[in-house]
Amino acid sequence: MGLLLKVLIPLLGAALALYFYSAPGNFSEGECGRRKSCGSTARGAACAAHRGWKRWQSQSGREGRDREEPQGQRGAAGTGKSRGTRRGTASPEPCASSAEMLRGKRVIVTGASSGIGEQMAYHLARMEAHLLLTARTEARLQKVVERCLELGAASARYISGSMDSPSLPEEVLREAENTWGGLDMLILNHIGQSGFTFFSGDVGHVRKLMETNFVSYVALATAALPLLKESEGSIVVVSSIAGKIAGPFTAPYSATKFALDGFFSSLRQELIIDKVNVSITLCILGYINTESAVRAVSHVIPDTPSPKEECALEIIRAGALRRRELHYPAPAVGSMLLLRSLAPELLESLARSSYRLENVRRT
Amino acid sequence: MGLLLKVLIPLLGAALALYFYSAPGNFSEGECGRRKSCGSTARGAACAAHRGWKRWQSQSGREGRDREEPQGQRGAAGTGKSRGTRRGTASPEPCASSAEMLRGKRVIVTGASSGIGEQMAYHLARMEAHLLLTARTEARLQKVVERCLELGAASARYISGSMDSPSLPEEVLREAENTWGGLDMLILNHIGQSGFTFFSGDVGHVRKLMETNFVSYVALATAALPLLKESEGSIVVVSSIAGKIAGPFTAPYSATKFALDGFFSSLRQELIIDKVNVSITLCILGYINTESAVRAVSHVIPDTPSPKEECALEIIRAGALRRRELHYPAPAVGSMLLLRSLAPELLESLARSSYRLENVRRT
Repeated sequence: MGLLLKVLIPLLGAALALYFYSAPGNFSEGECGRRKSCGSTARGAACAAHRGWKRWQSQSGREGRDREEPQGQRGAAGTGKSRGTRRGTASPEPCASSAEMLRGKRVIVTGASSGIGEQMAYHLARMEAHLLLTARTEARLQKVVERCLELGAASARYISGSMDSPSLPEEVLREAENTWGGLDMLILNHIGQSGFTFFSGDVGHVRKLMETNFVSYVALATAALPLLKESEGSIVVVSSIAGKIAGPFTAPYSATKFALDGFFSSLRQELIIDKVNVSITLCILGYINTESAVRAVSHVIPDTPSPKEECALEIIRAGALRRRELHYPAPAVGSMLLLRSLAPELLESLARSSYRLENVRRT
Repeated sequence: MGLLLKVLIPLLGAALALYFYSAPGNFSEGECGRRKSCGSTARGAACAAHRGWKRWQSQSGREGRDREEPQGQRGAAGTGKSRGTRRGTASPEPCASSAEMLRGKRVIVTGASSGIGEQMAYHLARMEAHLLLTARTEARLQKVVERCLELGAASARYISGSMDSPSLPEEVLREAENTWGGLDMLILNHIGQSGFTFFSGDVGHVRKLMETNFVSYVALATAALPLLKESEGSIVVVSSIAGKIAGPFTAPYSATKFALDGFFSSLRQELIIDKVNVSITLCILGYINTESAVRAVSHVIPDTPSPKEECALEIIRAGALRRRELHYPAPAVGSMLLLRSLAPELLESLARSSYRLENVRRT
């Protein structure tokens, strides 16, 4: 067997090279998006976004522009007062096809009061989607909803509350059904609070974080599935590199993010087997410049974080294109995942040696 | 960046080949164990088991033979009546060094009333370890304890109960401390019941399974850490290939096993950083011929399962040798993990096509 492996493994090495040579997805420079004009989408079948757009059209059987207005619209925040308004911002512009794909779509974004969730809400608003936002802090959510309406959201409303409450997932989906009569995309993005520090031994914290970061995702997806099956929609699960590679100081957080991978990657395959046309996109994010991430890790991790605005747009695009996984930023996350397979101990050792361990706070 | 990756990736492919060519661990045919006589351990420094044995000695600062008898011994099951007795069985014989390493050690095995846990208890009994076994079913546990004493356990006792009870982990560790005054190895192996079927949407089941398969592992490890730090002992976490690669029909189970990887792989690094000499071994098991596994999946997965007796011995050895991860059976699990990194969609497609999907029961 040893000899067999010694022959097989180099062959797999060559296959690896070949695989990445021919991979059209994350590694292609010609793909639209990424702060580029999307003129390239019209150039031919090679543009993944364009293919995704076509697929979206054929799968949903209707184009965004033509789809009926959602039912109800009895929202607290009203319906798209400023539709079409687009303000100059420092954000990357969504490429035309992404904007088209999301126009008029009914999207739930959780954890939308700050960070990447807030930025996703603004992108979706510019794309003229209907929005239902959730987060803990009502005051911040209200402001985000107002801004979304200014930016052009078809409609925007919110529900505030903590996702460790077992009743909230059902409530959110009931609101979507009552307001819109359906749902096209569920973006699961909220997280509970956890420190970047040595595991304190607080098992109660682990249990609570698992409820917020994982069980509520399962509950929201379960409640959303009937609506998403009807619309042939999408589930987008925002995870982290800490949900693929467990570094130090993130034990409870990593557990919850790993759990998301285990659950949703399994569920995705069941949907494929069952010929249910609901996509599941798992988003593996590196270090992003959100306020909370920078506050938590910048004194230990000396890397430069990636911009949250671009990250938010990439997540929306990956969901709209019905991708299996998003790795953002692709080079850093991709190479870490590759190294995890080839030499996990080397990767761990490199990570540990790059940390400013003397700055880690102990609880 | 694309060009850079196209140059880098083939280089990594070559590195992959080189890495596995030079890897001494799982792929070495010369290693002791695996139904072989362990005469080879004396042949030189190349034998991993021998190195591990040496390490065990230097880390714990005392040899198994010479260590003091544990305190207390006020057990329901008495102390090793049949010490040294060894009956002829179909089980693989533990190699001499593994037996030496575990002689007189104080070991907790959870989920020990059947399957791999039961087999681990028997191996440890033959190695003359002190055993504290846990499982739900008292009647079966009693029988396993009796058999352990016949096989030569230094002592054997049990606590029955369900690990979804938050108080049980503390109770188990209190028993170990009161009886032995310490602990050398904690083998976490129990699992809650879950079917091999499409996800039913039962969020309560997901929550309960997470409590049993994951949170109780964290609670047991947390309660054990002070004792294990003192003895420079080991934590062994029994997981599954479904805890690294999420196939269909295992969504809740995979989530819990992925969570174990996230938590314990992170904790392992914190212990390394903190210079705490407690090892954590994560065991990634393929399809094993336990009664419950065969009953759950044999009508869907046509593969031949690996023997639970050998599997149990490999887990004990990996723990004693303080390995980072065990992949058993190594060729199957190793190649699946490699394929996961190189071509995850191909792996998923191959897995799906190898299943007898028509036999999957729906709940």
